[in-house]
Amino acid sequence: MASLLVRGGTVLTMSDDLSVVRGEVSVRDGRIEAVGAGLPGSWDTIIDATDALVLPGFVQSHVHLCQTLFRGLADDLPLLEWLRTRIWPLEAAHTPGTLRASARLAALELLTGGTTTVLTMETVHDTEAVFEAVAETGLRAVIGKCMMDADAAAPRRLLEPTQASIDESLSLRKRWHGAAGGRIRAAFAPRFAVSCSQDLLEAVGALAAGHGALVHTHASEQQPEVELIRRRTGRRNVQYFEDIGLASERLCLAHCIWIDEAEQEILASRGVKVLHCPSSNLKLGSGIAPVPELRARGVSVSLGADGAACSNRLDMFEEMRLAALLQSARRSPGALTARDAVWMATREGARALGLDAEIGSIEPGKRADLVVVPLDRPHLLPGGDPYSTLVYAARPTDVRATIVDGEVLVRDFQPTSLDPEAIVAEARAAARDLRSRAGC
Amino acid sequence: MASLLVRGGTVLTMSDDLSVVRGEVSVRDGRIEAVGAGLPGSWDTIIDATDALVLPGFVQSHVHLCQTLFRGLADDLPLLEWLRTRIWPLEAAHTPGTLRASARLAALELLTGGTTTVLTMETVHDTEAVFEAVAETGLRAVIGKCMMDADAAAPRRLLEPTQASIDESLSLRKRWHGAAGGRIRAAFAPRFAVSCSQDLLEAVGALAAGHGALVHTHASEQQPEVELIRRRTGRRNVQYFEDIGLASERLCLAHCIWIDEAEQEILASRGVKVLHCPSSNLKLGSGIAPVPELRARGVSVSLGADGAACSNRLDMFEEMRLAALLQSARRSPGALTARDAVWMATREGARALGLDAEIGSIEPGKRADLVVVPLDRPHLLPGGDPYSTLVYAARPTDVRATIVDGEVLVRDFQPTSLDPEAIVAEARAAARDLRSRAGC
Repeated sequence: MASLLVRGGTVLTMSDDLSVVRGEVSVRDGRIEAVGAGLPGSWDTIIDATDALVLPGFVQSHVHLCQTLFRGLADDLPLLEWLRTRIWPLEAAHTPGTLRASARLAALELLTGGTTTVLTMETVHDTEAVFEAVAETGLRAVIGKCMMDADAAAPRRLLEPTQASIDESLSLRKRWHGAAGGRIRAAFAPRFAVSCSQDLLEAVGALAAGHGALVHTHASEQQPEVELIRRRTGRRNVQYFEDIGLASERLCLAHCIWIDEAEQEILASRGVKVLHCPSSNLKLGSGIAPVPELRARGVSVSLGADGAACSNRLDMFEEMRLAALLQSARRSPGALTARDAVWMATREGARALGLDAEIGSIEPGKRADLVVVPLDRPHLLPGGDPYSTLVYAARPTDVRATIVDGEVLVRDFQPTSLDPEAIVAEARAAARDLRSRAGC
Repeated sequence: MASLLVRGGTVLTMSDDLSVVRGEVSVRDGRIEAVGAGLPGSWDTIIDATDALVLPGFVQSHVHLCQTLFRGLADDLPLLEWLRTRIWPLEAAHTPGTLRASARLAALELLTGGTTTVLTMETVHDTEAVFEAVAETGLRAVIGKCMMDADAAAPRRLLEPTQASIDESLSLRKRWHGAAGGRIRAAFAPRFAVSCSQDLLEAVGALAAGHGALVHTHASEQQPEVELIRRRTGRRNVQYFEDIGLASERLCLAHCIWIDEAEQEILASRGVKVLHCPSSNLKLGSGIAPVPELRARGVSVSLGADGAACSNRLDMFEEMRLAALLQSARRSPGALTARDAVWMATREGARALGLDAEIGSIEPGKRADLVVVPLDRPHLLPGGDPYSTLVYAARPTDVRATIVDGEVLVRDFQPTSLDPEAIVAEARAAARDLRSRAGC
């Protein structure tokens, strides 16, 4: 593979000591070779980062690529109604072709906006098409087919027999886990406790432990959901997961807004990962997660945009800004600083995905997932603290370069291999197709 | 003056009946001549809006252009500390040169992001420089020099004798109100009750009534501020303004978060305008204003980004999105719809500024302040309701054209007359100068 130098920038390494280095990042064979000033050597490609920040690529720890084509079709609804009247009928109408179009549209938006890695929950069927499409785009992803075997309110097309759901998940894992040089990985993705039998969740817990695999699900997003689980199991969500053996450091739980003290303690003691999605939490009327409290207990809290059906933007800058601003209003200014938000968007995301040894910071030996953000744009001026500039002022169109595994996927603000015109045309056709079949 | 046709778009007129027209907007001598399909005539300039939305330019009803150079220098602080330790020392260090640089940087960000009109409170001194700079940029603005005559915590440089403050406001009004073909107007801008004597506020109330002028101030942004006023006057903020004769349809009050039922009733019965700034309200830890409740009472609530010192972005898309999302979480999804947010950002802003007969909607006879937003960008797809696309998904870099008084100030995403490189260089030099004199 080729060698690459990112030259002359201010490097926010996001290392343990948060060191900031003025100088170069040298990359060989997809991995970071050195970080420093005046590195000796020669390189096939030079990326200029003068008057720019260089940071690790963003890791979005909770998205649904398959929902990108649903953007703008499901506004102004609370969670359960949103799922039952819009999301599930639309997911049930997906085909391999529309899934491919949705994943490609998402990858384009994510990469051009500086996101290099996602943990994504897809729909129940045809997830093969998503693995294939994402592998082609260059995006790093941990992908799980959605598992649903018990939900009277779901369309029949989205319900599977328990064993079939497990078999399909295992089969996808066998084909795809570790593909594209390790860039593509597979997770188990039971939708949420409401849609899954206890048998399914217990089987997933055991399989994930055996395979060392992630379990990606939702929990405690809204009060009616918590009440449903309490009526069914006699317990709150996180307590239920603990009791059936699902709570572990491999469990990735989106939202965790309506959790009590005992549940927070379980998250901390078991090392469960919390995936915070502030845009989605506001838009669906869910509430504001107790992020500083969780972090104070040592719980890992990372960030994601959730699906475009509820956030309408797959924009990590927006999620960082909201994460910080919401806690400023909920607690006090500084309760979650800009630096905390950048940490959550990079290093903590890598930890959530079990990839902290590979990505999340700019350190020798790690994979070269990098983003370059110039500082000379009018809306970023005059700029002081670089974390403040990134979180409060910057936006996806400020990303001049995005690099994954040492491959330059965005250069001079433009994708290098993805074709926006083709993706737009394909997305529009697929959306028409999807809506006509879903009847919405 | 020249004639202009904006051709082939979907026109969100923001008229009383919210009519949406597919077709053309014809402009002559700076005013809208006709809106419709297949308009006859010939025009000097054609702006293509195929596959795009055409909407009225955004009206930001509360900003501080002079604080644009403070962006990133005042994070993580609550209001009174933020004012006393950062904003006031920085404002006291301003010169005509740094004010000019700050106003030009703001105008560039505002115009390229689709904002065509602002109501701005500047600092105490040298507001002449801001009037001059804004007049040159093409932005429409109602500008007020800040009035402060009584605040023990303010730097001496920012305190004036009562009569001097009034004389300077009147003198600026005489020179500038109605300048640039009516594009530049002047308001009275007492900072907030905390910083002003009752004599000053009463005099401003009487003068504003006599001149038919706007009074632009802040009220009830944080609880400590409300407590200060209660200790000093025995009353809450809005009740105090009512009692001293300031409450009228010409009074524009930024924030209004901590207001009780009686104060809401005063706002409604007197026709006082509320200026809502959600980014600022979150970042300073102020809270979330009761916007749906105010609107239900018939109170005018419009939108602004406040200063870049507290919002860090002068971005109307962000303020629309937050205005809607925050009420979704605070009340329920749909409590403030995307259409409501666009209304607040255009028509209601025009009403707040007393300019509803001139701007705020796309109707024959009004001034031609227009924005064109293309719909073919990946992050806006597939798109359904146009208001949803604008509020939840779009961003300032989606503005292809901005037109004020029929003048095309942004075309193909680039400013036509402002020089970004020169403004950036000037802003950086001015920020260095300012910070060294302010010592922060």
